[in-house]
Amino acid sequence: MTKLVIIGLGAAGFAAALSARKVDRSIDITIIDSKDYDLMHPCGLPFAIDGEVKLEELKHKINSEAMKLKLINKSKVTDIDTKDKTLTYQKGNQENTLTYDKLIIATGSSPIKPKIEGIEDNDNLFTIHTPEDVRKLITTTKKIKKANIIGAGAIGLETAIALNNKDVEVTITEALSSILPKSLDKDISEIIENSLKEKKIKLNLNKKIDKINKDEITILATGVSSNKNLAEKANIKLGKFGIKVNEKLETSVKDVYAVGDCIETINLITKKPWPSLIASSAYKQGTIAGANAAGSSQSYSGTLTTFATVLDKIEIASTGLNSHFAKKEGFDIISAKAKSKSKPEWFPNNKEITLKIIVDKKTKKILGAQAVGDKAAEKINLISAAISSNQTIQDLSNVELAYCPAVSQTYDIITMVADLILRRL
Amino acid sequence: MTKLVIIGLGAAGFAAALSARKVDRSIDITIIDSKDYDLMHPCGLPFAIDGEVKLEELKHKINSEAMKLKLINKSKVTDIDTKDKTLTYQKGNQENTLTYDKLIIATGSSPIKPKIEGIEDNDNLFTIHTPEDVRKLITTTKKIKKANIIGAGAIGLETAIALNNKDVEVTITEALSSILPKSLDKDISEIIENSLKEKKIKLNLNKKIDKINKDEITILATGVSSNKNLAEKANIKLGKFGIKVNEKLETSVKDVYAVGDCIETINLITKKPWPSLIASSAYKQGTIAGANAAGSSQSYSGTLTTFATVLDKIEIASTGLNSHFAKKEGFDIISAKAKSKSKPEWFPNNKEITLKIIVDKKTKKILGAQAVGDKAAEKINLISAAISSNQTIQDLSNVELAYCPAVSQTYDIITMVADLILRRL
Repeated sequence: MTKLVIIGLGAAGFAAALSARKVDRSIDITIIDSKDYDLMHPCGLPFAIDGEVKLEELKHKINSEAMKLKLINKSKVTDIDTKDKTLTYQKGNQENTLTYDKLIIATGSSPIKPKIEGIEDNDNLFTIHTPEDVRKLITTTKKIKKANIIGAGAIGLETAIALNNKDVEVTITEALSSILPKSLDKDISEIIENSLKEKKIKLNLNKKIDKINKDEITILATGVSSNKNLAEKANIKLGKFGIKVNEKLETSVKDVYAVGDCIETINLITKKPWPSLIASSAYKQGTIAGANAAGSSQSYSGTLTTFATVLDKIEIASTGLNSHFAKKEGFDIISAKAKSKSKPEWFPNNKEITLKIIVDKKTKKILGAQAVGDKAAEKINLISAAISSNQTIQDLSNVELAYCPAVSQTYDIITMVADLILRRL
Repeated sequence: MTKLVIIGLGAAGFAAALSARKVDRSIDITIIDSKDYDLMHPCGLPFAIDGEVKLEELKHKINSEAMKLKLINKSKVTDIDTKDKTLTYQKGNQENTLTYDKLIIATGSSPIKPKIEGIEDNDNLFTIHTPEDVRKLITTTKKIKKANIIGAGAIGLETAIALNNKDVEVTITEALSSILPKSLDKDISEIIENSLKEKKIKLNLNKKIDKINKDEITILATGVSSNKNLAEKANIKLGKFGIKVNEKLETSVKDVYAVGDCIETINLITKKPWPSLIASSAYKQGTIAGANAAGSSQSYSGTLTTFATVLDKIEIASTGLNSHFAKKEGFDIISAKAKSKSKPEWFPNNKEITLKIIVDKKTKKILGAQAVGDKAAEKINLISAAISSNQTIQDLSNVELAYCPAVSQTYDIITMVADLILRRL
């Protein structure tokens, strides 16, 4: 009987266990995890700050019995001996060992802590990484009504909205020149920047914080980095962004897989190393590595960093490269943008969406897309599908989209923007 | 200067005019149309019955001056002489002629009138085809509170919901064994059949009406057929479903194009002749034929009959072949279905969606999909894109979909159903 050990119970580790069990009913599965609860949904944390979701519900007990798996929690793996196929882990004061036939590393990521004056010994400094972080933040907002958020990525912005909803005066500081700079072009991020200003959230762009005011709340939201130390210690090859894996999600060491935030994947467009920090991809990778560890042979081809967030009820989503990254990669790009109602103008309860698509002038292949507004995530998902099947902008324009005035336009925004680009090409 | 004449001002004719103008700023465009108003949005008519949309707003004046086109309305084209490139049309009592260099036929479709006792001389009999039809129906509902709807397609069902909202007792009779039988499998249509029953709408399936009760309202919703008589008279080749066209949307006669409901297209999966009765495709075809008539060279490859409706706020959508048509075409099919919340269970204001996907066992290519519930149309649009780019179910499972708990699941219903099928293959 194969003995599979999974390090880390997040989206990737959980999916790996589910998938391995489906492929091999008799495989012996052990998950070893450092938390004192089972699964947790980290992307829900910012939404728990203002009570939109209940913090306690973000912890999720898994049914180890039904899944026929052994869960060792509150345990920190300290060493992997890949020759003896043995793990060493610390539980309380006790050191234990565990052997494996197949190992899946799913150690996730941790918030980056930049070196700024005032970051140490600061009770009012928070990352949004665990339920404990959020619980303490909520308590602190009862006394302190001023918050500085460092970093205008999704976590920083979601936290800004939640704190604003709790009548905390919020200032966001971002070192780059726009919010969500890795995902959006300036003309798209401006739509959201304007709505933040309307909510009296202060936005300092192009600015670095050099000193933290310890009397105010500080949220560190400067991104996360792969938890790769354990793998490094075990002489498993690392890349720039995390643990190196091949298409089968195998690491450089036989019988050791890695999945989720801790790995380095490749960008589907550039074929270059790329961070893998997307929960849906972590789940997907877990499914594939779990199946492979149990004897299947599935492949993961890479990421488009397909992403969504919701800020003040407005959906924002993107996939592929934004203009900045596309140019940096040497593409000669053409793009178009349009704003449209979701339904015909004569239909009530109408909403708006803005969509931008970026295309490689030479090959006419789609490089990326960004959307803000009604059903932004679904529009972006379709374009993610089109990019991953190597579609040109003409192919995208040709896709037949469903029309009913109660839900869509005869001339969908996707076709509209595709046609704008086609006419300019 | 090229003289382009377009017969019919619907979605297809309008798109043709817009597109021709964009390609050639100097082209001379004339639209000749039988209505006494400009554009009308027929898909909105059922939603005007209970006042959800305003009937008058479905009529849309086009800006002929800005578009630099001549609109001849209230005029019926009676003959096309394709040798002399001359049309004859009747305006009032007067017969006129008009010459063209390029002609686009966009004559649309008309409701099918089956031979049933009581269909003639019946003031309480309606089709939902023009604003006048709906205006008269609305007046009639003030006196008569019982309605029989013949046909459980989209128009029949949308009308049933609207009449039910106006406290009219509704019975729907359908000759086939389920509602929306051309689009949905029975296990999917049953979801909607159950919600109709909850609203006290009576449903007679597998039943043909042989006599109409003239004292009650009767709605004929047994489908539409192509308006192809004019083309036939001009010796333009017809197919089983309408005017035959090639990829450039040219008919069998030089310099004559045809677009929209009046044409026969091909099914993208079977490559066989197929009806083209989708408004978004009509618009697309208009765009292509308009451009081609103005000197461009664009192609239309066919339809998946990608379709959506909204019944009692529930979205329903489908694309490609349902199980019945797929088997009829000789495919050995495998399908899977799942129901899921739109967002994680711990996120508030959650909705549900059911998705079914049908796959060809041999090639693993996607043949069709059906969805009921939240964002059904958008999910189906993505699958339409996947089918039209020849994707296998493995490709679909690999698509990276955006996750944010405020808007989606880590494990999207599309990936979930794709994975179900992959495990069964």
